[in-house]
Amino acid sequence: MSTLGFIEYEKASPEVRAVYDDIMATRKTDTVTNFWKALAHDPARLKRTWLETKEIMAAGALDPLIKELIYVTVSVTNQCDYCIAAHIASARKKGMSEAIFKEMMAVIGLANENNRLVAGYQVEIDDQYKAVG
Amino acid sequence: MSTLGFIEYEKASPEVRAVYDDIMATRKTDTVTNFWKALAHDPARLKRTWLETKEIMAAGALDPLIKELIYVTVSVTNQCDYCIAAHIASARKKGMSEAIFKEMMAVIGLANENNRLVAGYQVEIDDQYKAVG
Amino acid sequence: MSTLGFIEYEKASPEVRAVYDDIMATRKTDTVTNFWKALAHDPARLKRTWLETKEIMAAGALDPLIKELIYVTVSVTNQCDYCIAAHIASARKKGMSEAIFKEMMAVIGLANENNRLVAGYQVEIDDQYKAVG
Amino acid sequence: MSTLGFIEYEKASPEVRAVYDDIMATRKTDTVTNFWKALAHDPARLKRTWLETKEIMAAGALDPLIKELIYVTVSVTNQCDYCIAAHIASARKKGMSEAIFKEMMAVIGLANENNRLVAGYQVEIDDQYKAVG
Amino acid sequence: MSTLGFIEYEKASPEVRAVYDDIMATRKTDTVTNFWKALAHDPARLKRTWLETKEIMAAGALDPLIKELIYVTVSVTNQCDYCIAAHIASARKKGMSEAIFKEMMAVIGLANENNRLVAGYQVEIDDQYKAVG
Amino acid sequence: MSTLGFIEYEKASPEVRAVYDDIMATRKTDTVTNFWKALAHDPARLKRTWLETKEIMAAGALDPLIKELIYVTVSVTNQCDYCIAAHIASARKKGMSEAIFKEMMAVIGLANENNRLVAGYQVEIDDQYKAVG
Repeated sequence: MSTLGFIEYEKASPEVRAVYDDIMATRKTDTVTNFWKALAHDPARLKRTWLETKEIMAAGALDPLIKELIYVTVSVTNQCDYCIAAHIASARKKGMSEAIFKEMMAVIGLANENNRLVAGYQVEIDDQYKAVG
Repeated sequence: MSTLGFIEYEKASPEVRAVYDDIMATRKTDTVTNFWKALAHDPARLKRTWLETKEIMAAGALDPLIKELIYVTVSVTNQCDYCIAAHIASARKKGMSEAIFKEMMAVIGLANENNRLVAGYQVEIDDQYKAVG
Repeated sequence: MSTLGFIEYEKASPEVRAVYDDIMATRKTDTVTNFWKALAHDPARLKRTWLETKEIMAAGALDPLIKELIYVTVSVTNQCDYCIAAHIASARKKGMSEAIFKEMMAVIGLANENNRLVAGYQVEIDDQYKAVG
Repeated sequence: MSTLGFIEYEKASPEVRAVYDDIMATRKTDTVTNFWKALAHDPARLKRTWLETKEIMAAGALDPLIKELIYVTVSVTNQCDYCIAAHIASARKKGMSEAIFKEMMAVIGLANENNRLVAGYQVEIDDQYKAVG
Repeated sequence: MSTLGFIEYEKASPEVRAVYDDIMATRKTDTVTNFWKALAHDPARLKRTWLETKEIMAAGALDPLIKELIYVTVSVTNQCDYCIAAHIASARKKGMSEAIFKEMMAVIGLANENNRLVAGYQVEIDDQYKAVG
Repeated sequence: MSTLGFIEYEKASPEVRAVYDDIMATRKTDTVTNFWKALAHDPARLKRTWLETKEIMAAGALDPLIKELIYVTVSVTNQCDYCIAAHIASARKKGMSEAIFKEMMAVIGLANENNRLVAGYQVEIDDQYKAVG
């Protein structure tokens, strides 16, 4: 079971409900996921984390789908099962095709492999990269 | 110093030179980075890793720039300094603006934070995600 | 199932039982958790790991509760589900309130985020920190 | 060199200077560290990250020193050299003695070891922990 | 459920079946594990990953059992539950005794502990290691 | 600089010198590496860590060279530069050839890649592995 349990909408304070309402409106869904229902034990942080997430994941120089791919990439690298399941679902809603998923996974696998080859071969940074700034 | 040292073009075998030539031609540059010069001690693997990298990082369902962002995301999450320096440089060559870099970093930071909130609050996977397949 | 299975008290050798007895006496409980019952396949290591754990987690310059918080912090950062569940339970027995849990989680989240901002922005160590010694 | 370089006080916008001034006043120091000077390329995020950090690291149910220890613990587990150097310095300013440092390190080492013993022995969560909630 | 589901032998294309047949022949078993049935959605990558795995894990300067131990070591350090279960089973088939398993686990635990002691004590590389090349 | 600095032989207490002497005798060398000189600030822990390391890394069911390879594998996966440099040097002293190094690196790279493919494809544990015990 979750550390503190989940706070369901019916039992939530008006402050928490307002966040839940904004989550559902923004995501065009009628459910709030467990992540938010766990954070709701700390209403001030729930609000801040949600506003931060909403702002960071919104369209900007990068498209919302690309941002989801980056989020999935972090979660796969860290092996966070919940985050992988939740954000693969979000990425699909934002247009991730099966082909995109497979290409993303190929890059994630390659980079995780090469990161270790670099470490074990103790590869020093090229002078040309030191000058980047 | 690198574990096995670097194999420079002048001292490379024809087999290794062929890979170096392809790297420089593909990347439109006249230098080969240290990563490849370290792997060159194992010519068969050098060739395979390069062909794999070339194919995976090429345009497909995802744009080469997006693939570089995914590569950087893995490297930042794993804290591989060499890989971060090298692939931020590659991403810039492929069009990463400062705005894109900053937005990518914001998502990487957020996901790394939320991955741990999920773990510590022991959030269980929502039923709706279990049904994804 | 566990790799080697668990060794229950009834089937344990006198050497293993002596460790189990000390664990239960020290923790004021009448059960031994699965971690110890798995390690018991290697009685010498079981004993050493238990004595090490007992000594390291005891009161010293740091209070036992603070030590549990540090243990939970490592486990959350590494995403070890078993360790998170077990040590959150231990921390509660040693006085972790809900408020302490939430503040700890906020710091863990923040640090995991900032660790990656530092990596991606390739922040160099300030001269003042180099002089620390 | 840092990815985007550092923004020094003299060249900073009024918005960025206001954050720098608050950092120096809060920390009772006359320097701003490189982390903030790198983030300053994104003034809105600089401000948000600073306010978040200031609030999360302030005294609450946990003492500021304990929060620094948690921050160091995350950074050591992730092996972020910059963060380790910076936050060990902060922890010392807040009262971390050499004895506290050594005990913290012993717990960090132990937990990182035991996290892997749990994984490799494939230890299942005890029923008693499943009921925690 | 798996992201894309599993492709069973009966429903697989001839190209995928050929890989499945080679996996079963090489491993002297009549089942294909879920990992391959998930990758089969991308037949070209399935084939490449299998050929790469077959070649890398084969006898060479290192014995296949030792290679499995290295694979398990990576998976335990990364806490990948599936990989730990699958490769401990493979290691046993290749001759891993209980004594070998326990000694491997002791080294994995020790190295994960010492990696963090090095980080937290900020130990600088000895001059003698810098000269290795 | 190291967090607490290094304790050189000349300035060490008799208790610390005894450990240093044993390290040098066991390793057939006349230098003590920085790791031990940093831990020496905590003489009791220095002694325990050394005795633990000596015992775990000694010949048993596994050969000392294989144990070094496992140690290097952990350090590469965690990207601990100091540990990689130090233990590659140790592995060489114990007989690691260039061919062994390259094969080990290939397995480390492969396992780090496949760990993430498993995570992202959300591969469930095969029934056959659940029965292992």
